[in-house]
Amino acid sequence: MQPPTAIVVSIGEELLEGRIQDTNATTFAAELLLRGFHVVAMHTVGDGPGELQELLQRLQNTVDVILTTGGLGPTEDDRVRQEVADLLGVELVSVGVDGSVDFLHQVFARFHPGTAPDFFLAQELIPQGATPLANKVGTAWGFHCTLGERAELYVLPGPPRECAATFFDGGVTEDLALRFGHHADQLVHAVLHTTGAAESVIEKPIRDYLRPGENPRIGITASAQGVTLSLLARAEPSGRSAEEILEARIAELEGKLHPFCWGRNSDTLPGVVVAALIDKGQTLALAESCTGGTLAGAITDVSGSSAVFSYGWVTYANQAKVEQLGVDAALMDDSPNAVGAVSKEVALQMAQGARRAAQSDWGIGVTGIAGPGGGSEEKPVGTVYVALAGPDGVEAVRHIRQYARGGRDFIRQKTVRDALDMLRRAMAGIPQVES
Amino acid sequence: MQPPTAIVVSIGEELLEGRIQDTNATTFAAELLLRGFHVVAMHTVGDGPGELQELLQRLQNTVDVILTTGGLGPTEDDRVRQEVADLLGVELVSVGVDGSVDFLHQVFARFHPGTAPDFFLAQELIPQGATPLANKVGTAWGFHCTLGERAELYVLPGPPRECAATFFDGGVTEDLALRFGHHADQLVHAVLHTTGAAESVIEKPIRDYLRPGENPRIGITASAQGVTLSLLARAEPSGRSAEEILEARIAELEGKLHPFCWGRNSDTLPGVVVAALIDKGQTLALAESCTGGTLAGAITDVSGSSAVFSYGWVTYANQAKVEQLGVDAALMDDSPNAVGAVSKEVALQMAQGARRAAQSDWGIGVTGIAGPGGGSEEKPVGTVYVALAGPDGVEAVRHIRQYARGGRDFIRQKTVRDALDMLRRAMAGIPQVES
Repeated sequence: MQPPTAIVVSIGEELLEGRIQDTNATTFAAELLLRGFHVVAMHTVGDGPGELQELLQRLQNTVDVILTTGGLGPTEDDRVRQEVADLLGVELVSVGVDGSVDFLHQVFARFHPGTAPDFFLAQELIPQGATPLANKVGTAWGFHCTLGERAELYVLPGPPRECAATFFDGGVTEDLALRFGHHADQLVHAVLHTTGAAESVIEKPIRDYLRPGENPRIGITASAQGVTLSLLARAEPSGRSAEEILEARIAELEGKLHPFCWGRNSDTLPGVVVAALIDKGQTLALAESCTGGTLAGAITDVSGSSAVFSYGWVTYANQAKVEQLGVDAALMDDSPNAVGAVSKEVALQMAQGARRAAQSDWGIGVTGIAGPGGGSEEKPVGTVYVALAGPDGVEAVRHIRQYARGGRDFIRQKTVRDALDMLRRAMAGIPQVES
Repeated sequence: MQPPTAIVVSIGEELLEGRIQDTNATTFAAELLLRGFHVVAMHTVGDGPGELQELLQRLQNTVDVILTTGGLGPTEDDRVRQEVADLLGVELVSVGVDGSVDFLHQVFARFHPGTAPDFFLAQELIPQGATPLANKVGTAWGFHCTLGERAELYVLPGPPRECAATFFDGGVTEDLALRFGHHADQLVHAVLHTTGAAESVIEKPIRDYLRPGENPRIGITASAQGVTLSLLARAEPSGRSAEEILEARIAELEGKLHPFCWGRNSDTLPGVVVAALIDKGQTLALAESCTGGTLAGAITDVSGSSAVFSYGWVTYANQAKVEQLGVDAALMDDSPNAVGAVSKEVALQMAQGARRAAQSDWGIGVTGIAGPGGGSEEKPVGTVYVALAGPDGVEAVRHIRQYARGGRDFIRQKTVRDALDMLRRAMAGIPQVES
């Protein structure tokens, strides 16, 4: 049986002008895939009169689900509800929920003098006969209706938080499950995250699984976060479920890629590291030079990280490394034996200094040249040392050589990833990547 | 005169599966806008046989430029060149550039045993009669040809670096200028950045400029970075150039929104703050609790920031605030007069402590509750204090109340923005936002 089809439509001149990166389309394409839909296209259109109506008219008899985002806000060019009503040949009416108009008056009064104008109050209007979709973090209601012969249309607000709230918590997921639930097990999807090896190294031991026609189909993507495998499994006529096929293949992949695999689906590397620290009851301290706080930022981005992380230092200047972390000044001065601030010795003393000052189980020290300035022939831009100091005398230093042409941001991101991966490996007893 | 129209088409199942965020469409929509094109739509399609051909057939007599990205790589599902050749009714032929086949053989040999297969060598094939577009950082050639009555089709590779190299350095920009150059000054675009006021507050004094039909057309976007005004000006029949019209309106906007405006176009708030510090020869130290290093990360993301920033502390635990920054422990203990770690007093002592320890001109202290845990009735999630300590006894504390439902990441991002804005205002002599 073919999976049901879907199209995602993004609405707004700001998208067509390239002012805003459209993350909604990507997010909800992935969510629709997870629910068993085959997303066959994405479209972005402006908010000019008639543009959306024309597109919906063309699409309505070709797909099972159309999900739109944007164009529901409180300004005059937010025309989506009217366009859909015109297409259906109905009027706009109140969502008919108690207090919906009062709420808009209150929100308006918080920021403006005078009475809320009609275009602001229009945020609680939907086409007659449509089902309201609640937006619990914003003011504009979404709605659902059926178009033409078969298309279920879900109209969601554009701000990503509001779009997500309406999708997950406003009735969309339930409605999709009710209408298409029997397809959800035809197609299942999972993502496997790796760090520590290039795409070609990851590919080699699993090449047989990557051939066209294999089930699950596997896609490989390399990014600053590492190499990601995306698996899409279909149920087989033989009766093996998509879930079963997926799990079996994931187990095989994890076996072949063991030292590199650290998580699945929505896992993040900082999240995995924080969870492991919590699990072991251990703590971490950070001393950063070239990453300048982004490593601490990645750790503290994880909710609950305060249980394992209390102290971080950003020591951009040599003097700061000496004063705050007790790094030996002679390593960085003009003397003949000095190794310079970007060296394995300084990285290790930073890690040890942070660990000692914070009285933590683990310390990480990072020093390097993120560029674009500051490089030399001996230590070009992209040269980074990451050191780890841990319990029982554990010590490790990794010398990372990155492409300067990746740019400052890329070098910093990759360094954060490699530092987290060092700690992950040390805690799991996996050998470090050779450098 | 109407500007020429353009459509951007992105090709690839990985986009439709939501595995990859499509940055090409946004980037090249903005580039086309800057060159005077009105981008009327974006489409994303898969790599199934016939899909692209059908789309191009439908579009070819409706727009002036079609720019596609993706589907030119070395695998069997990279079908774009064949689809275009089929649409034109021509064969695929070599680009006809010396050494183009040898180069692909060499690249193949670097990674694989055996002879390069045809689908790999196909990367230097283009439809007969098309003009090759060089891809100086990859293996797949792009190409240009004319479709139907008027559409100039530019076919570019998908990897963003390769796409950019082909667009900027492979012949696309020159060809666009040759064919449409006389339009380039018809439409000019600029962005104005503000921080410190809600969208409705920014809108109020400039409402007359926002009316439909105004030239320049102005779009307003709110994000965690602040409120952004996007201006799109057209030349007028009277002879006033688009540039002239744009600059005049920007001057008016900057006048009316003076305390809030901090930059234009590609400016960033950290970049503006670092530039101001460099300009004044002043230095900054940072003490962060709830932002956990992301403020330091934002500053050090600016190349050259090491000239003004040497010391940062992430003091997540109370003890760390006392030890590292000299915050009075009694403010945070169980005594009746204690105000707690999340308080204006502690924020200020953090700022002062960082400034003192780093011997810097400015110190910023941040303490708050980013959530989702840790909130109380008195201090709910989203409560943040940012303090600034500066030369000549300058001191300021801002109490920020953010929506907990914005989520941890949003709260941290807004806090970073507000902290940078406090310093920007203090340096420019602009009064602080009242809190």
